[in-house]
Amino acid sequence: MKSLPLSSIQLTEGLPQRMQRLVKDQVLPYQWDVLHDRVTGVAPSHCIENFRIAAGLAQGEHHGVVFLDSDLYKWLEAAAYCIELFGAEAQQGLAAQADEVCALIAQAQGPDGYINTYYTLKEPHGRFTNLQQGHELYCAGHLFEAAVAYCQATGKRAILDTACRFADYLARVFGTGEGQLPGYPGHQVAEVGLIKLCQATGNRSYLELAEYFIAQRGKQPHYFAQERQRPGYKDIFDAPVIRTPAYSQSHMEPVRQREAVGHAVRALYMYSAMADLAALTGSEALRQACGALYHSVTQRRMYITGAVGSTECGESFTVDFDLPNDTVYGESCASVGLMMFAARMAALTGEGQYYDTVERAFFNQVLGGISQTGREFFYVGPLAVNPAACRGNPGLAHVKPVRQRWFDVACCPTNIARTIMSIGRYAVGADEDTLYIHIPLACQIRTDRFAVALHTQYPFGDTLRLQVQERVQNLALRQSALAPIKALLVNGEARPLVALRGYLRLPGLRPGDVVEAAYDLTPRYVVSHPKVTANVGKAAVMRGPLVYCAEQADNGEGIACLRLPPVAAFTQRETFAGAGTVALMAQGTRAVFADREALHQDQLPAQEPAVITLIPYCLWANRGEGEMQVYLNLP
Amino acid sequence: MKSLPLSSIQLTEGLPQRMQRLVKDQVLPYQWDVLHDRVTGVAPSHCIENFRIAAGLAQGEHHGVVFLDSDLYKWLEAAAYCIELFGAEAQQGLAAQADEVCALIAQAQGPDGYINTYYTLKEPHGRFTNLQQGHELYCAGHLFEAAVAYCQATGKRAILDTACRFADYLARVFGTGEGQLPGYPGHQVAEVGLIKLCQATGNRSYLELAEYFIAQRGKQPHYFAQERQRPGYKDIFDAPVIRTPAYSQSHMEPVRQREAVGHAVRALYMYSAMADLAALTGSEALRQACGALYHSVTQRRMYITGAVGSTECGESFTVDFDLPNDTVYGESCASVGLMMFAARMAALTGEGQYYDTVERAFFNQVLGGISQTGREFFYVGPLAVNPAACRGNPGLAHVKPVRQRWFDVACCPTNIARTIMSIGRYAVGADEDTLYIHIPLACQIRTDRFAVALHTQYPFGDTLRLQVQERVQNLALRQSALAPIKALLVNGEARPLVALRGYLRLPGLRPGDVVEAAYDLTPRYVVSHPKVTANVGKAAVMRGPLVYCAEQADNGEGIACLRLPPVAAFTQRETFAGAGTVALMAQGTRAVFADREALHQDQLPAQEPAVITLIPYCLWANRGEGEMQVYLNLP
Repeated sequence: MKSLPLSSIQLTEGLPQRMQRLVKDQVLPYQWDVLHDRVTGVAPSHCIENFRIAAGLAQGEHHGVVFLDSDLYKWLEAAAYCIELFGAEAQQGLAAQADEVCALIAQAQGPDGYINTYYTLKEPHGRFTNLQQGHELYCAGHLFEAAVAYCQATGKRAILDTACRFADYLARVFGTGEGQLPGYPGHQVAEVGLIKLCQATGNRSYLELAEYFIAQRGKQPHYFAQERQRPGYKDIFDAPVIRTPAYSQSHMEPVRQREAVGHAVRALYMYSAMADLAALTGSEALRQACGALYHSVTQRRMYITGAVGSTECGESFTVDFDLPNDTVYGESCASVGLMMFAARMAALTGEGQYYDTVERAFFNQVLGGISQTGREFFYVGPLAVNPAACRGNPGLAHVKPVRQRWFDVACCPTNIARTIMSIGRYAVGADEDTLYIHIPLACQIRTDRFAVALHTQYPFGDTLRLQVQERVQNLALRQSALAPIKALLVNGEARPLVALRGYLRLPGLRPGDVVEAAYDLTPRYVVSHPKVTANVGKAAVMRGPLVYCAEQADNGEGIACLRLPPVAAFTQRETFAGAGTVALMAQGTRAVFADREALHQDQLPAQEPAVITLIPYCLWANRGEGEMQVYLNLP
Repeated sequence: MKSLPLSSIQLTEGLPQRMQRLVKDQVLPYQWDVLHDRVTGVAPSHCIENFRIAAGLAQGEHHGVVFLDSDLYKWLEAAAYCIELFGAEAQQGLAAQADEVCALIAQAQGPDGYINTYYTLKEPHGRFTNLQQGHELYCAGHLFEAAVAYCQATGKRAILDTACRFADYLARVFGTGEGQLPGYPGHQVAEVGLIKLCQATGNRSYLELAEYFIAQRGKQPHYFAQERQRPGYKDIFDAPVIRTPAYSQSHMEPVRQREAVGHAVRALYMYSAMADLAALTGSEALRQACGALYHSVTQRRMYITGAVGSTECGESFTVDFDLPNDTVYGESCASVGLMMFAARMAALTGEGQYYDTVERAFFNQVLGGISQTGREFFYVGPLAVNPAACRGNPGLAHVKPVRQRWFDVACCPTNIARTIMSIGRYAVGADEDTLYIHIPLACQIRTDRFAVALHTQYPFGDTLRLQVQERVQNLALRQSALAPIKALLVNGEARPLVALRGYLRLPGLRPGDVVEAAYDLTPRYVVSHPKVTANVGKAAVMRGPLVYCAEQADNGEGIACLRLPPVAAFTQRETFAGAGTVALMAQGTRAVFADREALHQDQLPAQEPAVITLIPYCLWANRGEGEMQVYLNLP
């Protein structure tokens, strides 16, 4: 089961398509301007300027965080997908900008292949002296991903050659051989990038380097501990948590890991590489580690929205069932990593169930990370927001009640952009003779083997009409746990709902055939495991893969006082965002307190009837600052 | 309305008396050993050793935090109360130890009167160069309080003379005159100590220095900001919050302050001094500030247990209604400060209502700060504890599921000890011809004007029998909002329940008269203001002034799943602690989940009958580690 080229999956309608157009029309141009330090009211990023200085095109010093280069790489990756998807429509400005970026990166590359503006400009003799914190391999990984994407999108090999020169250099530098550095990335993602580079070029040395990075990690003596002992070693970051081995998942060899710990983005990028390697090498040990880690993440440490990372301290996983709604970190990038890991688990196992997690993370946390204007972003994804507390309680300082225009550490905006642009890759797959629909998005699929059109308003609409055009052989339609198919028809004739490895299979389709599926999108209550103590007595509302939330904009002040009706009976209307998005309304109650002043009072509140309006979590915080809660009290 | 000498109020039974005996028999000897670095398993305190080195009796360096001297002063104050209360019984060992301490302090005193082992040993030329962080005036304040207490207890003037020499020195050093330092304490308490010193000696210069400290605070240019600009200035503490003016309530002049902000202990010690000064100087402006600050604390920023300080960051107040149960700080010392402030507000206004806050803080948070063995202490007072989360989530690292044997910063244990020992001063007061019973504790009161015996098991028992012995004139029995008197009899004859300024007044009592009062200790639900979002849909249970909580030891794992019955119908039994302490039991329900594994599940839990057992919050965490919650779900 492989993904298809993005160009063969054109989204045609619905929220994901609208978000892709937003990325094309608003997000990429806006980010281009930000990376060029020319957006009024946004602090200079210095990203492009650093490259220009490193390339000898400008004078000056490096400014910004050590991993700043990666912002440009992720922008380039998103731009590549945009060009691949939108073809001529994007050719004008964007393609020229992207070519300019590719040339700039190449000019910033050293003769040996090394690229990193921070070290080149600030610490030319410091390369790889601080693998734990220096992020050179992290930036490299994002470059590799971007280069592969851009070459696939445009056929232009220049950036791929740039990437390969860097990767070749890394392959010489790293390893356990004589004169090599026995280290590995402090922030994983090089592994994923190297695997893609191998797949794009056929050069197995890249795969071997990725394997080495995973195999070497966590061995004793601990590389990062040794690194800190070397003369001249300097910390780049102050926070002590960064120096703990678990933070970077180097506390034990990855193949022995069973629990999701440490920095959530690092973790999920690593698990993604492990799943890739398990598939490519057939390692049963890696496969078992991946299975256990997936279970640990999704059944013990993941929010209903697909947010992961329960604490701001180290942006990290904590312990099983520790899922506070208010102090949560839930970095947007971590949910991107979760999508990556889950999709790779599906590829590794051939099981469709993993796409439930892809949908959960994408439709809630990732889409929720960007405003409907495309110019504001969330880094942190809370499930309960009280703006006054966010401002007044330092323990909530990381939780912003409104999206921000940019960040000093700006990993999320470009990560969200590249993920939205590449959602087609997640939605559709194929093996030799079967087209897999993992996520039913409205799209036109056209390859040399398949040509079908999907008509649906999913995740808001509950029907799918799939028209077989010139080509298709067998179809596998994923049976989701979040939005189960309750009826399946081929040319009007009902078919049994028997799923095999998570897919309803329709063999032998012919041109002109029409497949219709009805999804159960009945709104439902979802409760947490009883050990998630803050949520006992409360429920969230889901409709298909979408998590809903109550906002002050719809419900007035005091949304904590709302109480859901005993059964999930909702009416629907379009949300403020229009375009077929669905708000849910129910007749619930609101707690009304006899004493409106006393901090502690003896009289229980009365319950008065109240209409409760819920909107999809991915649309929250688009109408100014206000309270928000995903979990509401039950009677 | 003044307090009576402690020696005239002998507690005779009940929990407070038991806790006083515990302090005498266990706490003071244990703390004596800890301060002498001779308790196995407890890291050396260095407290006494620092004094010995400063006194020239030993060789070595200063070790420990900059404010370590204050631990010994608070121990001495507690010892003084113990000697005053227990007379001959305590004379043996304790009096000799206390005399030794007094001599040691005097020997550590410089010829100019200055005492501080940290600066004397580590920074002899650094006196008063870091008022914001150096804590010299904080230590001085605790010395003054201890000296007054010891002189009152024993009649020995030596330590009072020592204190006065120090205070005289401070009066020369500080002020706005030529050559004086226009500074003020970084951590308040000197003000309270100076006022006591004035009252004990009649020397008004101490009162004037306290007035100056309050008047000078917060003026511009900001003293602490200027201090940091001086050549050679060094920070003692790293945390940036410490350098914010609000942290030390120096963001504006105290008389203009209306909201409780910053470090909670500093705040409440300062408000206490302000209330003292308002009473002593008649300042209407200070009185208004005190009233507003009291309202801000108790009606906007105080937990039901009398805990204050919603965040660990700066051990500080946050904003109105921000009262998280789990991430709370709620330092024991802050609740001691709250008792001090509230009692002074009662003295300032003549209103009894303020003693509701004294009772709330004492019977819950302060008594809960010490174990039933007297050898373990809480620094932080949470209202919800999940031990796994406390260990695994760094945002809860300050919350300990079990009391600790000691602390690096050990302000709380001795503060709790001195407060328990002096509770008689809070419980009883007098003006020229009236005896005030603020808190009905079982005791024998005997002065030249009053001689009465109070028989009660309060706060557990609901009756008071007061026998007029040889002397009493008028009695004022406080009518509490937490445990209202529902029947009042004199010699069996009912009296009207008409409270004047918070007191039921019984004039003209004669020897042999018997006053009986019945308190309403019916268990009741108490809910939070709706803006305390985490508590909507939940209630705490109170009985009189006692807050109750559910512990895992009684209710098994998963106490978050408990649901209280619709009305507060409880049966009673004695708790594990015996001695008339009351546990409450109710027939509630427990949420039982169909799926015991899934993190997110669609089926609402069933409610099964369950007996819920609650114990007083002040007795929690005496049976090993486990879950605890004050607020439980309501139907």
